[in-house]
Amino acid sequence: MKNRWLIENGTFITMDPQQPVVEGWLAVENDRIAGLGTGQAPDEERKLGAELVDGRGKLYLPGLINTHGHAAMSLLRGLADDLRLQDWLENHMWPMEAKFTGDDVYWGTSIAAAEMILSGTTTFLDMYDHMDRVAEVVEQSGLRAVLTRGVIGLCPPDVQTAKLNDAIGFAKSWHGQAGGRIRVMMSPHAPYTCPPDYIERIVAAARELGLPLHTHMSETAAEVAQNVKDYGVRPVEHLDRLGLFSGPSLVAHAVHLTDEEIALLAERGVAVSHNPVSNLKLASGVARVPELLKAGVTVSLGTDSAASNNNLDLFEEIRLAALLHKGVTGDPTAVPAPEALRMGTVYGAKSLGLEGETGVLQPGLKADLISVRTNKPHFVPATDYVSHLVYAASGADVADVWVDGKQLLRERQLLTLDAERIRFEAQRAFDRLRA
Amino acid sequence: MKNRWLIENGTFITMDPQQPVVEGWLAVENDRIAGLGTGQAPDEERKLGAELVDGRGKLYLPGLINTHGHAAMSLLRGLADDLRLQDWLENHMWPMEAKFTGDDVYWGTSIAAAEMILSGTTTFLDMYDHMDRVAEVVEQSGLRAVLTRGVIGLCPPDVQTAKLNDAIGFAKSWHGQAGGRIRVMMSPHAPYTCPPDYIERIVAAARELGLPLHTHMSETAAEVAQNVKDYGVRPVEHLDRLGLFSGPSLVAHAVHLTDEEIALLAERGVAVSHNPVSNLKLASGVARVPELLKAGVTVSLGTDSAASNNNLDLFEEIRLAALLHKGVTGDPTAVPAPEALRMGTVYGAKSLGLEGETGVLQPGLKADLISVRTNKPHFVPATDYVSHLVYAASGADVADVWVDGKQLLRERQLLTLDAERIRFEAQRAFDRLRA
Repeated sequence: MKNRWLIENGTFITMDPQQPVVEGWLAVENDRIAGLGTGQAPDEERKLGAELVDGRGKLYLPGLINTHGHAAMSLLRGLADDLRLQDWLENHMWPMEAKFTGDDVYWGTSIAAAEMILSGTTTFLDMYDHMDRVAEVVEQSGLRAVLTRGVIGLCPPDVQTAKLNDAIGFAKSWHGQAGGRIRVMMSPHAPYTCPPDYIERIVAAARELGLPLHTHMSETAAEVAQNVKDYGVRPVEHLDRLGLFSGPSLVAHAVHLTDEEIALLAERGVAVSHNPVSNLKLASGVARVPELLKAGVTVSLGTDSAASNNNLDLFEEIRLAALLHKGVTGDPTAVPAPEALRMGTVYGAKSLGLEGETGVLQPGLKADLISVRTNKPHFVPATDYVSHLVYAASGADVADVWVDGKQLLRERQLLTLDAERIRFEAQRAFDRLRA
Repeated sequence: MKNRWLIENGTFITMDPQQPVVEGWLAVENDRIAGLGTGQAPDEERKLGAELVDGRGKLYLPGLINTHGHAAMSLLRGLADDLRLQDWLENHMWPMEAKFTGDDVYWGTSIAAAEMILSGTTTFLDMYDHMDRVAEVVEQSGLRAVLTRGVIGLCPPDVQTAKLNDAIGFAKSWHGQAGGRIRVMMSPHAPYTCPPDYIERIVAAARELGLPLHTHMSETAAEVAQNVKDYGVRPVEHLDRLGLFSGPSLVAHAVHLTDEEIALLAERGVAVSHNPVSNLKLASGVARVPELLKAGVTVSLGTDSAASNNNLDLFEEIRLAALLHKGVTGDPTAVPAPEALRMGTVYGAKSLGLEGETGVLQPGLKADLISVRTNKPHFVPATDYVSHLVYAASGADVADVWVDGKQLLRERQLLTLDAERIRFEAQRAFDRLRA
């Protein structure tokens, strides 16, 4: 039986430049948007539509896309804040993460998935370990995800090889699975955690598998200086020499860039995942987002993990992307509201190789969408809904979420995940880790 | 009959350094906190407490305090964003504000009051015009407020005098009203909108009335340069010479300060209302908050108006105060979470001359408190609730609000305001203004 339903009387913020706002109807058939139009739905649509959804009082927009994170680290939320990076990593994060079992990753990712659905994210990138357990959560939750085993190469050659084989094995098992909702990337963790020859091996594997590459890059000034010291060049040129940018690639953070590096990223078509909250919290600095956008680089948004954020509400990243660069550059026209919303939707899709699949409300694309209820003081007056979504809304305003045409959230009730059990198990996992 | 009630089984984030977190009970008698303790409430409290409130699954903390805003401007939310300051003011804000009637101020302030209660603010400072209509909203809503008629002196002497008399009249009528919930300050709008002799007259009036002073100061680099050009000194020295700091005073923004100005503000005991979202959105810059705090200046938080924010969620200001200064200074220990929460509570009270009245959960103080429901993924695991409140929560997590021991919000239902009517009337007011 076909999955068919129809939203009537809705306001659709499409992110499609041809018709940015549509007051009308949207029809879904199976996993895709089948139609979208103004006014009343045509009779043939109404007849086909098995389920009718009343869209009054709601804004509909593409589901948000989180292009960098480590979901399982939600287990470490609030464990250690306001510390210097090395202290935070060496004395708090790494000792706990070293104890993570597959079950910890499963429950940590589950609590993250619940939080992401509740705040309107429909697609997320996840770089971590025990990725088969992450994939399990994606299967169960109904979310769309780009998953990647982040490999750290500071280890003996046999361990390097084992890790790479693990990443390749994961890719072969899971790319295209969960009804196509899972895609896989290959990830050297960072230029400062992987020797050059190991990065080249990972790049070669990615090319052989036909998969994009993802890595952390130029997050801190210290790591850039170290790269220059170790390899004589800054990270962008270093990774370029190693072939990382010779195919589709996405780098997270990219805080410390020269003009020449921005030009090279644009030339190579490298996408950037901007993580403003995490960059501020860890005192990494402020990425040069207006310059990146001006150069034509695709800039999307990531939360990074809840250990350095400390939530997964992408509305907050969208807002901060719009606010921060104005204040820091002194230009109030920097990153205007529509551009910030594109960063959280259509540019997110582009960053993940999902352009033409999700990130826009358009017939033929995947039915990945969310609704936001507007009967709240902070949506008054009804001036400019894009402005309100960017500058006034939060993830808590999200009422409904669909991915692949399937509803995951209905009036803030999770339909695919058992929120109470997940909270209980995640707390238990944390208590055990800390014991 | 006495108003008596008792919260049991609650977790109280008191902001009292003597006992920062109390797992136990809190008793209220009339408008004040009568008792607070760990474990089970003593039998005598239970017998006295007419109403029992089950605190399980909730955090209780002092109501948040918003120390700078223009509530009625909520009517202009989303009207004009991402513009240069002069364009925004001259072509969008001022033409609309010139049309504001008392009724517009009433409905604009009402929608702001509803939003503030729904996001956990219990006390707000408001600087605007038609202040009798703002006071009406304070009376009806049950909020606590510090109200001040902001006077602009760029007008003929008779108009200056009329405005000052209006401000004095308002102070005489309303200071101490609404059961003591309303206090009044005197406000020259800013050094660049009031000639020096006019500021001196306002200062003299404040001293005569025994009221504190509030003003905008050093929000933009341009206004500081203009001050130097016009008066030969920067704004802090200018206002100090005019006597503004010779008694209790609170300045909003204070973005552009020299070391000497910070030292002088500390010496004079001038409080600062830091408005991080507004300062970013209008591209004013980033205030030197860590240095101000280090110098011993009381720094609290304000939203400014919804026209430059665009919401009134003080949790967002608290979070940004904690995040922004880390990223900009490169010091991840800057403004740690407990300090950011103090800025939104106890330092807010101190800024408004309400220290020892509100801002802390302590027997003898006003029963101004809020609850936050923690059965949500972003509060898991239960590591550090102050961290979660600062880095993970939002105003939408607020369940209950009390001011003066009276409940204004119960499980997110407004008890003193008719939210639906206010939304309708605010929209109608906006439509009329734009017509």
